[in-house]
Amino acid sequence: MATTLDGYASFKHFLVSSPAEYVAHVETNRPEKLNAFFEDMWLELAQIFGELSHDPNVRAVIFSAVGERAFTSGLDVQAANQGGMLSQDGASDGSRFATRVRRHIYEFQDSVSAIEKCEKPVIVVMHGISIGLAIDLSCCADIRICSKDAKFSVKEVDIGLAADIGTLSRLPKIVGNHSWVKEVCLSARFFNADEAFAVGFVSRVLENKAKAIEAATEMATLIASKSPVAVQGTKDILNHSRDNSVADSLRYTAVWNSAMLQSNDVVAAMLSGIKKTKPRFEKL
Amino acid sequence: MATTLDGYASFKHFLVSSPAEYVAHVETNRPEKLNAFFEDMWLELAQIFGELSHDPNVRAVIFSAVGERAFTSGLDVQAANQGGMLSQDGASDGSRFATRVRRHIYEFQDSVSAIEKCEKPVIVVMHGISIGLAIDLSCCADIRICSKDAKFSVKEVDIGLAADIGTLSRLPKIVGNHSWVKEVCLSARFFNADEAFAVGFVSRVLENKAKAIEAATEMATLIASKSPVAVQGTKDILNHSRDNSVADSLRYTAVWNSAMLQSNDVVAAMLSGIKKTKPRFEKL
Amino acid sequence: MATTLDGYASFKHFLVSSPAEYVAHVETNRPEKLNAFFEDMWLELAQIFGELSHDPNVRAVIFSAVGERAFTSGLDVQAANQGGMLSQDGASDGSRFATRVRRHIYEFQDSVSAIEKCEKPVIVVMHGISIGLAIDLSCCADIRICSKDAKFSVKEVDIGLAADIGTLSRLPKIVGNHSWVKEVCLSARFFNADEAFAVGFVSRVLENKAKAIEAATEMATLIASKSPVAVQGTKDILNHSRDNSVADSLRYTAVWNSAMLQSNDVVAAMLSGIKKTKPRFEKL
Amino acid sequence: MATTLDGYASFKHFLVSSPAEYVAHVETNRPEKLNAFFEDMWLELAQIFGELSHDPNVRAVIFSAVGERAFTSGLDVQAANQGGMLSQDGASDGSRFATRVRRHIYEFQDSVSAIEKCEKPVIVVMHGISIGLAIDLSCCADIRICSKDAKFSVKEVDIGLAADIGTLSRLPKIVGNHSWVKEVCLSARFFNADEAFAVGFVSRVLENKAKAIEAATEMATLIASKSPVAVQGTKDILNHSRDNSVADSLRYTAVWNSAMLQSNDVVAAMLSGIKKTKPRFEKL
Amino acid sequence: MATTLDGYASFKHFLVSSPAEYVAHVETNRPEKLNAFFEDMWLELAQIFGELSHDPNVRAVIFSAVGERAFTSGLDVQAANQGGMLSQDGASDGSRFATRVRRHIYEFQDSVSAIEKCEKPVIVVMHGISIGLAIDLSCCADIRICSKDAKFSVKEVDIGLAADIGTLSRLPKIVGNHSWVKEVCLSARFFNADEAFAVGFVSRVLENKAKAIEAATEMATLIASKSPVAVQGTKDILNHSRDNSVADSLRYTAVWNSAMLQSNDVVAAMLSGIKKTKPRFEKL
Amino acid sequence: MATTLDGYASFKHFLVSSPAEYVAHVETNRPEKLNAFFEDMWLELAQIFGELSHDPNVRAVIFSAVGERAFTSGLDVQAANQGGMLSQDGASDGSRFATRVRRHIYEFQDSVSAIEKCEKPVIVVMHGISIGLAIDLSCCADIRICSKDAKFSVKEVDIGLAADIGTLSRLPKIVGNHSWVKEVCLSARFFNADEAFAVGFVSRVLENKAKAIEAATEMATLIASKSPVAVQGTKDILNHSRDNSVADSLRYTAVWNSAMLQSNDVVAAMLSGIKKTKPRFEKL
Repeated sequence: MATTLDGYASFKHFLVSSPAEYVAHVETNRPEKLNAFFEDMWLELAQIFGELSHDPNVRAVIFSAVGERAFTSGLDVQAANQGGMLSQDGASDGSRFATRVRRHIYEFQDSVSAIEKCEKPVIVVMHGISIGLAIDLSCCADIRICSKDAKFSVKEVDIGLAADIGTLSRLPKIVGNHSWVKEVCLSARFFNADEAFAVGFVSRVLENKAKAIEAATEMATLIASKSPVAVQGTKDILNHSRDNSVADSLRYTAVWNSAMLQSNDVVAAMLSGIKKTKPRFEKL
Repeated sequence: MATTLDGYASFKHFLVSSPAEYVAHVETNRPEKLNAFFEDMWLELAQIFGELSHDPNVRAVIFSAVGERAFTSGLDVQAANQGGMLSQDGASDGSRFATRVRRHIYEFQDSVSAIEKCEKPVIVVMHGISIGLAIDLSCCADIRICSKDAKFSVKEVDIGLAADIGTLSRLPKIVGNHSWVKEVCLSARFFNADEAFAVGFVSRVLENKAKAIEAATEMATLIASKSPVAVQGTKDILNHSRDNSVADSLRYTAVWNSAMLQSNDVVAAMLSGIKKTKPRFEKL
Repeated sequence: MATTLDGYASFKHFLVSSPAEYVAHVETNRPEKLNAFFEDMWLELAQIFGELSHDPNVRAVIFSAVGERAFTSGLDVQAANQGGMLSQDGASDGSRFATRVRRHIYEFQDSVSAIEKCEKPVIVVMHGISIGLAIDLSCCADIRICSKDAKFSVKEVDIGLAADIGTLSRLPKIVGNHSWVKEVCLSARFFNADEAFAVGFVSRVLENKAKAIEAATEMATLIASKSPVAVQGTKDILNHSRDNSVADSLRYTAVWNSAMLQSNDVVAAMLSGIKKTKPRFEKL
Repeated sequence: MATTLDGYASFKHFLVSSPAEYVAHVETNRPEKLNAFFEDMWLELAQIFGELSHDPNVRAVIFSAVGERAFTSGLDVQAANQGGMLSQDGASDGSRFATRVRRHIYEFQDSVSAIEKCEKPVIVVMHGISIGLAIDLSCCADIRICSKDAKFSVKEVDIGLAADIGTLSRLPKIVGNHSWVKEVCLSARFFNADEAFAVGFVSRVLENKAKAIEAATEMATLIASKSPVAVQGTKDILNHSRDNSVADSLRYTAVWNSAMLQSNDVVAAMLSGIKKTKPRFEKL
Repeated sequence: MATTLDGYASFKHFLVSSPAEYVAHVETNRPEKLNAFFEDMWLELAQIFGELSHDPNVRAVIFSAVGERAFTSGLDVQAANQGGMLSQDGASDGSRFATRVRRHIYEFQDSVSAIEKCEKPVIVVMHGISIGLAIDLSCCADIRICSKDAKFSVKEVDIGLAADIGTLSRLPKIVGNHSWVKEVCLSARFFNADEAFAVGFVSRVLENKAKAIEAATEMATLIASKSPVAVQGTKDILNHSRDNSVADSLRYTAVWNSAMLQSNDVVAAMLSGIKKTKPRFEKL
Repeated sequence: MATTLDGYASFKHFLVSSPAEYVAHVETNRPEKLNAFFEDMWLELAQIFGELSHDPNVRAVIFSAVGERAFTSGLDVQAANQGGMLSQDGASDGSRFATRVRRHIYEFQDSVSAIEKCEKPVIVVMHGISIGLAIDLSCCADIRICSKDAKFSVKEVDIGLAADIGTLSRLPKIVGNHSWVKEVCLSARFFNADEAFAVGFVSRVLENKAKAIEAATEMATLIASKSPVAVQGTKDILNHSRDNSVADSLRYTAVWNSAMLQSNDVVAAMLSGIKKTKPRFEKL
């Protein structure tokens, strides 16, 4: 079994282990509540991904959830209500309430975006109930895979609001079938693993959760065996490219690589290619 | 049969009915000419979608065409010629002709964009001949479905021009297979319903036109049953997201929701979720 | 057999023939080295596509490679090393080395981008080994097709660097399945023709290279039979659209067509449509 | 005295005259209320500038206000209140009120933007009280001049809101002193003609209103004597340039001029330059 | 004398007082070292502005420095060297060193940007030596004023690097004289208060530091007397406008105000305008 | 007198000398025709600046013109007419003529942009007649200075066209007084050196041409004495900043400096700062 990753033992809502060299595995650990999120959880999640981002012992990250029933059922609405986020109490008028809401959304968005900003590639493994926040979270990951039992929904319209933690911002950029994107976002209807694969929301469907974790681990191990300079540059440039024109992206790439080609990894990779040995790359 | 929607009886080229509560159905009504468009028609179309956009009795719109043979065969070239749009008569030189053409294209583009700007989701149902302007129009809809007999073509290169009413601007953003997009736009070749589905141009193919209208009505009814605040916000944010970076989209979304979370719909939706009743939302 | 295209006989690394009227066929001709590229080759390639871009006898271009084994195995690393590009020799510090690298990457990027900037549509035909630079090159083409034996890989992380000649800038914009894009770019794993077709990287897979060239020639001939004003405008506007918002693209399109509707091709195309004859368009 | 411009006699709130060949003069005509605006007025203003935009008899426009005391004191708050725009009456919750407000702001913004969208150059002449909406309106003009007695203020924070009809969007783009822009927008303090000139908000200050109108007429007459193809292209490209990168602007300019160099004006201008005669340009 | 602002007493490197109702005054407090910055200081600065941003007792902020000689002499290079930031020790190759540098720059940039992100307007008062980081810091403020003795320099090229904490990103956007911007950034030459005023880098020059603080306090007090909803919205929208097209800015503004017009401030402001009383606005 | 710069003796239309160490001086040499440009000249100019860009012996460039009367009177219209650029001869229709024009403009724009793309700072010195192309050229320089006798005009509307070689794209971005920019571009009126200085088009006015060249040489020498890594990075980042948001610019800057801080120049600069000696920087 995977051992706890050094330095990540103190987190309350997530398990962080290391199933393979240079691979971290983050698991949401609130299975009794279908891994529903409340504020403390997303703040902690942001902290974990912030640390993984610069941790030289980590080159690839798997993100999944404990338990058999749900990756996450989304926001824990009951807990949110106790926090009073959506209550107008104490706000003397609509504009002051709106200010409080806006600040709250920014904080929530920033937390979730920590997955995207993590310099190391993140593979998310979804299973069972994967609705609402599940979509926001997974859209921040680099690679999305799921098990056959996954049931997805962009659930927010069902609770009276437009999704505001990232789904509407990222989903149309990562799935190239906008008729489908609009359909699931506007109707909140469920879609299953096969449909998710057919439209390209996930790039792999496995028989069950265990197999999906296994596949993710294999993929993470493969990525972690490559030059971390090359892998982390690839993630950064791909994220930059999503939001910029081709011309701007080419320029950014050239500048990036002008620094990053000054690495021992190129030689190490080439030599090991010739010698058919496994290269060893220094920490990053 | 659906009744005419109040306030939309006077239009000449389109039927506007209401097949279900909060659902409007707009039908192009020139079947004897394969629903080919001339200037009066697109001006009227823009007017209709402009009114639907703010009509509190409408929460979802279906757009299709009367008759069995065609959604639309595109621009009625004969009528266009009579209008003299493409004739250089009366323009004393190339720059003055170009100015007239530019103004004309802007007017035409604006008319078609009214579908996209309509605040309510639009589901387009295509059948039979669906070429030229059919693609421009349907790219403005949120959700595209069709019947098995639909025959599509980005026809413009066949009449000697680059499509200028929106297809080239929107198709590459709603279908994530650019090799295919380029192929059909550069060659004007036909593609059928199955191919349209495979590449993601439409998200559903039905047995025939009747079934497709039925499916669209069902989908529209589902969407119309949700909070209109949530649904219309979702459409607005998704359209914004298509044209902006993730960072800009997140910011816009937060500001949008700072206003829109001040709604009774959130409570209504949550209560009905708990009570398993159908929520009633106020007009918007 | 196709004859050499007039004016293109002097190139050393590429064959340029004309398999059909208005169709040019560019073939990388270094089969004994798996069509691996070195600096002289990409400079020559840029020159060829620069000339084709304005050649009035060319309306569509096919790009493929000689031999049965490879479209290209990518950069000829041995040749690159001899050029000393990646050696820090002679650079007195990291910033001076970085400057040299940056200039080199810009030159390389510009060469490859010549395919995209060519005003005439380019159909790339890939077969066998198609890795590394193969992806950068083909992402610049308008239409990508391949034979069943094609083996693809975004190979760069395997040699210790992030791909910097265009793959990371263009692939996410031409394939709408970002989970897959990230997977193949971060892992350098191989993918075959069927997978390439399923995700939309290529829009057609043929039985073998000969059939693929045949299909490309047919497609190019079809495109070359259309109005060159319409076809070249379509390519230009689609490339503009990829990097701009819908609003900006509509404006650009209207201005473009205000000049381009002043063509004899519209009348020629319409008349031939009525008379069922093949239109003849003047050179462009 | 200037005669009423043909076709513009029926407007209620504005006088439209023609002080010189090809020059139109639009004057806000509500001096008894310090030319304060209400909804009917801005709708009418948009209509006037829409017509001037395509009127072949107009090549330059002057925009000023009747009376000695004010260009405009801004929004007529009393009238606005009667319209109920800011009343939450009838809106069942905050989100529904926000929707009504948003639609209203869009309509107001669109009306004011008609000045910017007018294809002919607009010279605004401000005098006396020029506050609130005065800044929004004048930022849409191409050239701003004023008389010595002009008193300006970005007044909106004084009535409890951020300016939303264009000042905050356009002022920072037309005045290159952001410390000053922030200061006047955040404090609502008054600034006079000299300060407006020093920071570049206006490009000319005249002794009094009559002199300012005279200077504007001279300038408009000069502009109207030039090729309308050249002048209107210059306005369009400058407005495009403000919102786009240099690279995008250069591309747009080239495409624009590819149509617009097909004009008799170039020859007419050059010949008259050689012959020292005044060129005559055809209508546009 | 101003009292310490509640809740800000514990900071080590900065004094935070309240010279007037709703006004905070932040002072860099390291006069013995010419207020040169080291890492702890900018982290603390970010924390202070983060707290002021949401502090309901603060509506405007003044930022200056203790002592007579310097606003700041910039980065404390000695301290930076001890931190080892620029030493390649421990970095096994250029790419790993570059990664460390990049992370460090991001952290430093984020700290300084906290001034810009602070929701309340910030008035910076510069005096004496104001070089290097002084320019980065002040470009983040909304309003820049200085005393006559201020001596400015974009000093970075003198220490062998391009300014990377914001000067090169912000200065060209806040000063509309790019020939001057390039000159001072490329040459590191000094410029004095008068020149800074003439080009628009500062919007006011006062006789000495005391007078400048006085003027800033007056200005801050004026701003703090306005509706905080209006003022903070104005800052947010102006910052958005700087980085977006006019069309995008107008849209954002409308959505912002759809929430923010739901305030009691509009009524309060209007009533006090009529009654000639000083309005009281609720906390924000 | 300045000696010819090594390797630049063979140019026909320009003199290239070296008035000081690391400083190049490019002079347009067609005084008998008021330094009017024809195609061969701008192609040669592009070549010169392309070479200077990578020449390790050059760290700053002065650009001026030979003779007392003119920096340049712009395009040599007679020569242009002989080239037949504006003649429709041989173009079978308007679209084909437009295509030829568009390609021609792109080539011309690219030539002029070589000044902007030159990695070394360029100081342009204007004197006497400086109209039409003079503005396009000088807008590409980093620093603009002139002598008192300079007479400027954005002349293009006087010859019947919108300026298309860069003035309309760059002038509004380098001068922050848009009312003035619009005025001079729409009217083609002359403006003198003092007005150019007042609005910020030039940052220095000298008594006469000789003094201006002297001042430019001094400025260039100063810049050339700084770290070339720092100076060239500053130019690159400032040009990037002009076309990008602050957030994008900060990110690009951090990546740039992650490579560029790996230089010996930082240490050399700091040591010489301490020792009060003149630092020597290695070639770049």
